[in-house]
Amino acid sequence: MRHPPQRIKSTEVIERTDGRERPFLDDLAVEEPLEIRIGTDPVTITMRTPGDDFALAAGFLYAEGLIDDRHDVSRINYGHGPDDTPSGNVVTVMLRPGLRPDLGALRRHFVSASSCGICGRTSMDAVHAREAARPNPHFTMSAEILVQLPAVLRSAQRVFGRTGGLHAAGLFDARGKLLLVREDIGRHNAVDKVIGDSLLQGILPLSDHVLLVSGRGGFEIVQKAIAAGVPVLASVSAPSSLAVQLAREGGVTLAGFLRERRFVLYSHPQRVR
Amino acid sequence: MRHPPQRIKSTEVIERTDGRERPFLDDLAVEEPLEIRIGTDPVTITMRTPGDDFALAAGFLYAEGLIDDRHDVSRINYGHGPDDTPSGNVVTVMLRPGLRPDLGALRRHFVSASSCGICGRTSMDAVHAREAARPNPHFTMSAEILVQLPAVLRSAQRVFGRTGGLHAAGLFDARGKLLLVREDIGRHNAVDKVIGDSLLQGILPLSDHVLLVSGRGGFEIVQKAIAAGVPVLASVSAPSSLAVQLAREGGVTLAGFLRERRFVLYSHPQRVR
Repeated sequence: MRHPPQRIKSTEVIERTDGRERPFLDDLAVEEPLEIRIGTDPVTITMRTPGDDFALAAGFLYAEGLIDDRHDVSRINYGHGPDDTPSGNVVTVMLRPGLRPDLGALRRHFVSASSCGICGRTSMDAVHAREAARPNPHFTMSAEILVQLPAVLRSAQRVFGRTGGLHAAGLFDARGKLLLVREDIGRHNAVDKVIGDSLLQGILPLSDHVLLVSGRGGFEIVQKAIAAGVPVLASVSAPSSLAVQLAREGGVTLAGFLRERRFVLYSHPQRVR
Repeated sequence: MRHPPQRIKSTEVIERTDGRERPFLDDLAVEEPLEIRIGTDPVTITMRTPGDDFALAAGFLYAEGLIDDRHDVSRINYGHGPDDTPSGNVVTVMLRPGLRPDLGALRRHFVSASSCGICGRTSMDAVHAREAARPNPHFTMSAEILVQLPAVLRSAQRVFGRTGGLHAAGLFDARGKLLLVREDIGRHNAVDKVIGDSLLQGILPLSDHVLLVSGRGGFEIVQKAIAAGVPVLASVSAPSSLAVQLAREGGVTLAGFLRERRFVLYSHPQRVR
């Protein structure tokens, strides 16, 4: 049996208020490296909060276009670290027989001129590998429900409440029901965990869903949402220029600055009634 | 002559307040890819806000241990994109004759088991390549000055005020004077810009300085601060477990949750009087 992942670590710190000192035990969000492997081949190392590591691995591989659905995965387990002992920071994904993704192409994506599609004009070039279908044009939801989602997500963020240091991604249906919430020190990881969990459950594409992220809506978040077929992506903060451009080109409704009574629609506003 | 970098982009969006719709022109923080090359060899691609691109490239290469000071750099200029036209999103760094850093090692750092020092027990293994000196043990500053820094940084964040979407890193002296502020859609980039600018000015290591970051203090931010010799790293938010561990091992004073009258010291508190 594995131990449950440690997401919070207590450590002694010093609080100073108006010159007065008080030592106390503070709860920190745990950050540890995770190495994701396909078989014995290392694919990437990401700094993440432990927990839902298999979903994180699956979501990352999906977003990079290396797997398409749960049948591409035959097994996921923890692997061995550099010293050959079992490690909770190494995840090994075994693919179905016959599937050999081009890891060289992924490496070139990280470090290469030839993969630099995003250096050109068209941001859609950068939606790696996968021919992303247009998100469901028939999905709609009410504005009244949309503005309530951040409060629902926040109340479901169990670790955040204690540490103040975690991002979250939440998956909702059109009626505002929270289906899945995942937390991580990295925004991208929280999204990968939600999408990877959905992949492993076999519910991709997320054609009738809203994805809410706790932080800013950047380019890569929109990229992952499009890959997963999400029709509405919402955030409590501001998106970047490239995030808006990609959302417009990719057919995603991008909502930002969600407040109790107010929000901003950056693309495809027709999905929000 | 190059055009000044575009950091803000206006786009038409729709604001909804209590069911009322109002179209308006919103200012978005610009996010674009930057490819950093050494000579003709691509090193990395990062999503960044344009501006201070040469400093960003220098800071990134320094943090990765590929260059040590400004004399390692003989020239930096913009390069050519995939279509062979000049591109503001490609920066080429020419190193001094004779300096040939091991780019293969960097690639293995991105994608490799053998580089996964951080999968082991000792986070200091991950301070790449460079034998980082201990930050200045004699540097001290007053708590009264420390708590004022976030307000100074915020008032200097010109782009942030308009877009709400940018991180900042500010370099201060012990008396709280702001020496340098850099903004970016990525926290790591803002720090790389400050450190890279300092490198190009020839003022590394930053032995008598405080580095303030607008977001969370994660592992990689602490790593960069140690590499630059910064004695005090401060943030308005919570650090991660690994950030605290690395700051303690690396001899950096890490302060978090800076408020008007209160803050928390996570490591080496003796530098704050």
